Amino acid sequence: MALRGSLFRLLTTQVGHSCQQSRAQSVAVLGAPFSRGQKRRGVEHGPKVIRDAGLIDRLSGLDYSVHDFGDLNFHHPEKDEPYMDVKFPRTVGSANKMLSGAASRAIGAGHTLVMLGGDHSLAIGSVSGHAQQCPDLCVIWVDAHADINTPTTSPSGNLHGQPVAFMLKELQDKMPAIPGFSWTKPFLSSRDLVYIGLRDVDPGERHILKDLGIQYFTMRDIDRLGIQRVMEVTLDHLMARKQRPIHLSFDIDAFDPSLAPATGTPVNGGLTYREGMFITEEIHNTGLLSAMDLVEVNPMLGANREAVEATASLAVDVIASSLGQTREGSQVSIDEIPSAKDDTEQLRI
Amino acid sequence: MALRGSLFRLLTTQVGHSCQQSRAQSVAVLGAPFSRGQKRRGVEHGPKVIRDAGLIDRLSGLDYSVHDFGDLNFHHPEKDEPYMDVKFPRTVGSANKMLSGAASRAIGAGHTLVMLGGDHSLAIGSVSGHAQQCPDLCVIWVDAHADINTPTTSPSGNLHGQPVAFMLKELQDKMPAIPGFSWTKPFLSSRDLVYIGLRDVDPGERHILKDLGIQYFTMRDIDRLGIQRVMEVTLDHLMARKQRPIHLSFDIDAFDPSLAPATGTPVNGGLTYREGMFITEEIHNTGLLSAMDLVEVNPMLGANREAVEATASLAVDVIASSLGQTREGSQVSIDEIPSAKDDTEQLRI
Amino acid sequence: MALRGSLFRLLTTQVGHSCQQSRAQSVAVLGAPFSRGQKRRGVEHGPKVIRDAGLIDRLSGLDYSVHDFGDLNFHHPEKDEPYMDVKFPRTVGSANKMLSGAASRAIGAGHTLVMLGGDHSLAIGSVSGHAQQCPDLCVIWVDAHADINTPTTSPSGNLHGQPVAFMLKELQDKMPAIPGFSWTKPFLSSRDLVYIGLRDVDPGERHILKDLGIQYFTMRDIDRLGIQRVMEVTLDHLMARKQRPIHLSFDIDAFDPSLAPATGTPVNGGLTYREGMFITEEIHNTGLLSAMDLVEVNPMLGANREAVEATASLAVDVIASSLGQTREGSQVSIDEIPSAKDDTEQLRI
Repeated sequence: MALRGSLFRLLTTQVGHSCQQSRAQSVAVLGAPFSRGQKRRGVEHGPKVIRDAGLIDRLSGLDYSVHDFGDLNFHHPEKDEPYMDVKFPRTVGSANKMLSGAASRAIGAGHTLVMLGGDHSLAIGSVSGHAQQCPDLCVIWVDAHADINTPTTSPSGNLHGQPVAFMLKELQDKMPAIPGFSWTKPFLSSRDLVYIGLRDVDPGERHILKDLGIQYFTMRDIDRLGIQRVMEVTLDHLMARKQRPIHLSFDIDAFDPSLAPATGTPVNGGLTYREGMFITEEIHNTGLLSAMDLVEVNPMLGANREAVEATASLAVDVIASSLGQTREGSQVSIDEIPSAKDDTEQLRI
Repeated sequence: MALRGSLFRLLTTQVGHSCQQSRAQSVAVLGAPFSRGQKRRGVEHGPKVIRDAGLIDRLSGLDYSVHDFGDLNFHHPEKDEPYMDVKFPRTVGSANKMLSGAASRAIGAGHTLVMLGGDHSLAIGSVSGHAQQCPDLCVIWVDAHADINTPTTSPSGNLHGQPVAFMLKELQDKMPAIPGFSWTKPFLSSRDLVYIGLRDVDPGERHILKDLGIQYFTMRDIDRLGIQRVMEVTLDHLMARKQRPIHLSFDIDAFDPSLAPATGTPVNGGLTYREGMFITEEIHNTGLLSAMDLVEVNPMLGANREAVEATASLAVDVIASSLGQTREGSQVSIDEIPSAKDDTEQLRI
Repeated sequence: MALRGSLFRLLTTQVGHSCQQSRAQSVAVLGAPFSRGQKRRGVEHGPKVIRDAGLIDRLSGLDYSVHDFGDLNFHHPEKDEPYMDVKFPRTVGSANKMLSGAASRAIGAGHTLVMLGGDHSLAIGSVSGHAQQCPDLCVIWVDAHADINTPTTSPSGNLHGQPVAFMLKELQDKMPAIPGFSWTKPFLSSRDLVYIGLRDVDPGERHILKDLGIQYFTMRDIDRLGIQRVMEVTLDHLMARKQRPIHLSFDIDAFDPSLAPATGTPVNGGLTYREGMFITEEIHNTGLLSAMDLVEVNPMLGANREAVEATASLAVDVIASSLGQTREGSQVSIDEIPSAKDDTEQLRI
């Protein structure tokens, strides 16, 4: 099967570093049907419903060459006891190791990566894979939650609330040796990360955010500053010293639950549709996006089919807007509007 | 029948130019039950559901003398083959010719005109009729779409996506001689038009907007500038040289689909209710509104009765707010609040 | 029964003035199941559904000592003829007299008062009781309506549209001697009151607002200024001369009906969820809130169970946010995130 074949190659081919090359015209879509970073079943069907909502056609319509590598085929260890309070450590670790390799190869092959989750624990793999190719990347994390608990601060033990803690150099000495994660090391500085959309932050997370001086914008900050100013400060902060590749990690629960009901941990008072489009338009306009995650769409949690379809369709809009779809109309160049005379002649032909 | 009688007079009476006269106290409501500018049935019932939502009472409550001229009775040619790709050219042309005459007479008689569509192709008639009385009018077009395709750029061939192209002098040489439209000539300069609410613009339309330097505000612009600044720039732009009559052409699909679901071409990320009220309050506050369209309410497209009623009720709110309904309370003058003593005396009488 | 016992004490104990003392850690919740200030049945069940939505747990989670005094037990006079046009004057007067005493005692005992309505006529009792303890209080009235009709201007005669008129010294000579209200006298200056959220103001009310120069922000003003500026001006206005206790009187119909459908007089175009949170966060941040009302949740008016639960849950969010719940995470102090080494040791114990 062609898809499996290309996925196989993606997982095995060795490619050179290619972070600097223009990736404007080629997108790799990679599904990660995984749910063990949290406790609600269904989020592993995220890739399917996002594709069913028309993702590939929409990206093709933006003049991309779209390479859909299908879904990763995660194997789940039979026995995976909690470590400390952490649930499914080996399962999550192994899935992210596989994803990290695939992400690295896709980006190394010159594609802009679109990773479809699955739960947000998958960002450990996608961002670390991205960082292998682009060590100077920065991360924009759009989410209702900070996902920066360490195993010792996490109230739940679910790893989808902890991925950022695995990435940050500054938290290295707070991280115990979780089984399943020996393959990865912290690779991101806290100054290279900005949060947008926070509104449900655990006490330990708040402590870490403040302690490390991480730049973050809660919904209250968006209310105060407006989304345009938030994006200005975000990009100024990340690009202060130099232009660098962007990893956008977008949790669908950043949106208000009225827009994205089919997700596991909805929190009232989220982003409007227009704020979501504005954030992604601004990121696209930098020309620096090299990989993105779209996670936590869970089709088993919507109240009905409409709720699920609305959530999946919103995910497609976020991805398309990140990749250049605009509200001003397509920038397809047209030299001139045909005059009436020309048309009449054309009709005669 | 009184209504038919007054409609008959509206269609036949010759009146003098009266654009300058104060039209503060008299409103003409004119229904245009027409759907051949697009392909979805049902929008011809727009006038009925907007009236059923209480339009006449609401306007009467604003201290207007309201003249409801009922609905125009369009005759549809039996045979109306497409011309080039344009669908129903003679049907749309003939309906707009009738509407243009009625609009001109209503405005000439000193009324502020409220035209209830029907699809947006009807703006050809209402704006041209308005222009007959007020040649120096300007147009504020509130819509998700630019409706400025020419017959050669239109992807669909539906005329509700092309009305503005029939109005603009600058596009005259791009317009073939569509059958049914020999009665009208372009009458509007591109600098006398402002769009608000765009978010689904075709490539040819974008080319025209840029090429002619038309002032427009997409939803992204509203996100950036805020609706207050958008209205300031809009009115400054249109009134730069002098005060002039305003034609407001309001497509209900400018609103977000969550507010106006019963319409033919909904697009996510539209105006909020409050932005719609703000736009219309600002237009009313100029004292210069002399005609408006409210189009594209299609009662056959809502998911249920509530959806249709919400859309029709929103249309009434838009019209009422354009004509002076405020969120600060009515400006009915009260000289003094009766004192307790006065009341007791009044009660004794 | 413990609850009744403590309520009994609240109603009978004599306590000294204690407005200045810190009331940071103790909250009194007092239900006022009353509906005779308006004509729709069901609003008397407001206290029950707000408690059922988890109010007490939420406040306890904010580290308050929460004292739930249960519901006041109002007695309704058998015969209560209208006076002038005023409906149920003795019933409303007597209920408010009881509430006033209870509110005064709760505040006098050092609690921050949370009064759960019931209809908004109850503010006569809660604010007057508050004023007995804190004569220099100011009032922030968040509402779609101004509730400032006098018996002679009220279009309906319902007392929930008139409570502010009973409070204002400047309206004293406009107020007839309504039976049932001999126990109270106006105690508030019009400069010590700010409205937020108005969008349905009666002509007489508008006259009073203008005549007395009351500071108010309609939804249009919020559209123009933004909610942050509105709160700045509100607090500057009220605290211009000195810091003083705040009474927040929050009518759930200030929110948009899409958020708070289960209420008696919904008006389109209301506050967003985020604006509601911002208002209450700013009030909490002053450290000056000493009493609040949450009124007009009517569980018999939602279209379905979801509508009622959403409205009640929103009421809980408003109260929790007024009392310190934040979107930045709890401010529980954590000295340090445990290091990985520490944890391993802890696990060994």
